[in-house]
Amino acid sequence: MSAHPLEEILHPRSIAVVGASNSGGRGGGFVAPLQELGFKGDIYPVNPKYSEIMGLKAYARVRDIPGVVDYVISSIPAPQVPAMIDDCVQKGVKVVHLFTARFSETGRKDAAELEQDILRRAKSGGVRIIGPNCMGLYYPREGISFNNGMPKESGPVGLASQSGQAVGEIVFLADEKGLRFSKAISYGNALDFNECDYLEYFAQDPDTEIIMMYIEGVRDGSRFFDLLRSTAATKPVIIVKGGRGTSGTRATASHTASLAGSMQVWETMVNQAGAVSARDLEELVDLATGFYYLPPIKGPRVGVAGGSGGSSVLAADICEEAGLDVIPLPVEIREKLKANGSPIWDWVGNPADFSIGYDDFNVGGMIQMMDENENFDFLILFMSGPWFRGGDMNINKLIEEHMKRFNVEDIKKPLLVVFQERGRGNNTDPVMQNIVNEIKKRLMDANIPLFSNIGRAASTANKLIEYYQKKK
Amino acid sequence: MSAHPLEEILHPRSIAVVGASNSGGRGGGFVAPLQELGFKGDIYPVNPKYSEIMGLKAYARVRDIPGVVDYVISSIPAPQVPAMIDDCVQKGVKVVHLFTARFSETGRKDAAELEQDILRRAKSGGVRIIGPNCMGLYYPREGISFNNGMPKESGPVGLASQSGQAVGEIVFLADEKGLRFSKAISYGNALDFNECDYLEYFAQDPDTEIIMMYIEGVRDGSRFFDLLRSTAATKPVIIVKGGRGTSGTRATASHTASLAGSMQVWETMVNQAGAVSARDLEELVDLATGFYYLPPIKGPRVGVAGGSGGSSVLAADICEEAGLDVIPLPVEIREKLKANGSPIWDWVGNPADFSIGYDDFNVGGMIQMMDENENFDFLILFMSGPWFRGGDMNINKLIEEHMKRFNVEDIKKPLLVVFQERGRGNNTDPVMQNIVNEIKKRLMDANIPLFSNIGRAASTANKLIEYYQKKK
Repeated sequence: MSAHPLEEILHPRSIAVVGASNSGGRGGGFVAPLQELGFKGDIYPVNPKYSEIMGLKAYARVRDIPGVVDYVISSIPAPQVPAMIDDCVQKGVKVVHLFTARFSETGRKDAAELEQDILRRAKSGGVRIIGPNCMGLYYPREGISFNNGMPKESGPVGLASQSGQAVGEIVFLADEKGLRFSKAISYGNALDFNECDYLEYFAQDPDTEIIMMYIEGVRDGSRFFDLLRSTAATKPVIIVKGGRGTSGTRATASHTASLAGSMQVWETMVNQAGAVSARDLEELVDLATGFYYLPPIKGPRVGVAGGSGGSSVLAADICEEAGLDVIPLPVEIREKLKANGSPIWDWVGNPADFSIGYDDFNVGGMIQMMDENENFDFLILFMSGPWFRGGDMNINKLIEEHMKRFNVEDIKKPLLVVFQERGRGNNTDPVMQNIVNEIKKRLMDANIPLFSNIGRAASTANKLIEYYQKKK
Repeated sequence: MSAHPLEEILHPRSIAVVGASNSGGRGGGFVAPLQELGFKGDIYPVNPKYSEIMGLKAYARVRDIPGVVDYVISSIPAPQVPAMIDDCVQKGVKVVHLFTARFSETGRKDAAELEQDILRRAKSGGVRIIGPNCMGLYYPREGISFNNGMPKESGPVGLASQSGQAVGEIVFLADEKGLRFSKAISYGNALDFNECDYLEYFAQDPDTEIIMMYIEGVRDGSRFFDLLRSTAATKPVIIVKGGRGTSGTRATASHTASLAGSMQVWETMVNQAGAVSARDLEELVDLATGFYYLPPIKGPRVGVAGGSGGSSVLAADICEEAGLDVIPLPVEIREKLKANGSPIWDWVGNPADFSIGYDDFNVGGMIQMMDENENFDFLILFMSGPWFRGGDMNINKLIEEHMKRFNVEDIKKPLLVVFQERGRGNNTDPVMQNIVNEIKKRLMDANIPLFSNIGRAASTANKLIEYYQKKK
């Protein structure tokens, strides 16, 4: 079995950045992220106006580069691209990532023709194209990135996105949830490789366990849905569709020259293929977070604990509205509370309201009892950081006591935590922020996904349940 | 015209805290917030076990207090309350806030009878009751609070909430949006004053321009909806209903002994009364933020700017799905771009995508053109903080340049800003956090409300439009 065509081009021995500069613009930008992420091969800045860029020797043209050039990033203006492609053909380049835009997405006939001319030249010369009009590749293990500040660590999430902005936003959102990427590719106008190629690639990629996609338009619908069905049978595929309504469809045309189709047909096809739809990038990351950390959730019966008063009542409403089943507190738990002498054994319910604080009634104990009770399919817990009162408090002790109080690190059922960070200026207090970050890390290390509110936790759980039931 | 019964009791000359202690529990907690917020009258801790609490002389019983006692906060156990009420009657106390719980919300017959006994004693002795089972009053101008860390500043928002937890959460959420409160009252089981009294009070309160409510159950539906109709005609009333489904209804019974009714009837009645429904506390605060900062929004035609790539496409989708009309970019703006020589005059649309950066095409200029164009009813702008590169950057200059670039402080149309804080570790960098806070403050000072994502901005705008259209 020969390797996938994308596999062949994703391990370049060297990268040339055509249109690089020292002026801090995007050209220079494509050199700096490679240096920052520690790309091991040679980096060749190409720009006839410079002899040196970002500390590296610069070349006037690709063909002037002495060594092998496998991968080219282009940020030169569109009209200069055909000649550059010819240069790449001559040099034996494997792939050109065209950050260069102003092609078919402009809606102009001459620009669309220029795009086709580029494709012809590349194809006949054996050069593949990523883009045009996109940010290209983020591949942490190979040290390839298009943005500064992207995480250096790899992980099991693969992302193919028609929008480069979306890749940046998704990677940073995912970073806050402890999610890392195998590869993330933005592919813009999909002139050569398209959504099918990227999906097919991630389907067979052993480094990728969860697939995310942001798609504006599909070039080959029949092949795409066939691939989606076969891929979703083995790996969760989560898709955000951009261009769902009239104005969004108009926006996709000018963004990546995509023709968005009927949303109803799209939703049905995605659903039938066994993939999962997300409405926006936040939901995309929430769902991946759920798939990454949680074992399969077998049913909708949820136990909710850790909230108090109105937040418990609203949690019940919101869970139910999301399709979950907030069952009454099982009689076994009530009996256990009674046996322990709790004065509120007949009052507490599900959600378990912790506004009445008794020493014998603690959230850790409740979560433990819910975990042991067979009536619950999974659990949701409200948590905030401990209250840091300043001064010479022992921070490590504070964190240990907090973790002990909630006692969630050994919970066996799927557990989602709603982590409430806001309020009381905690966000701007660096000590408090460190405490919160440490606790979040502890939870993620125990395979517990974090959500910013109950609505997002409940909706994620419901979509995971549907996914696993469909799969069964 | 005599003052509203609540007005009479909200300006106490002194407050006694029965059940106060030095042990840092809730009893002491009710003394400390009064001291922190600077309550001007006398504070009398009451507890026979102490001679001094939080630096104040403590008394064994209310009747032992030498001076006048207008207002009593009770955190003693439920069985001790009747005798304490008798004491208050003897002392001429005007109102007792019963933080004390374990009454009808327990579902126990004897507890419900105890509650009724307390009501009888209080009524016959001329003492009014707030609660029981609630956090009571936050009234910043009078220096009254039940939580530490509540803002000292007053504002035009009045809040009546059956849940005390919800008051705390709402006040802190609102604080992040620059929203302040006239009074916020949590009223729990509504034994004496109920939702009608609080709504009636805020309706006539000259300090309150926007009314928020969190309600689990209504004691007098007919009077409530009459009041709601007359109040909503003059002030926006935003209501979150807790206990909408089966499990939530179960939760309201044990939380505040409320009987939640049919949600469909409720929604219809709220809608017909001209009030606004919110699904959760975040939406409640979003809506109040919109009402507070914005002039009436006359229609659904929105101009969106400042996003880029995928975020622009998804913004169009999400706005349309929320009921807004993302109209094509008006021809006048296109002509103006063309006349200015912009190379992308025929490409840019609405949402205006700023992924292609040209010097002559800037977000401030676009917002200005949208503001001057009569086809837009209102505007939404994406903004994040400026990119702080560390070192000896001049922070004030950075902020000034940022504000100048977006140029929104003089926009005349209603403008909502989606402020994107997250990503790239900005949240944990104190310098970056200061920059972001300063910019947010500048925006709020210019009467621009901030939202954390496009979905929340779009939904808020749509509900405001519906409110103003119904009012007309």
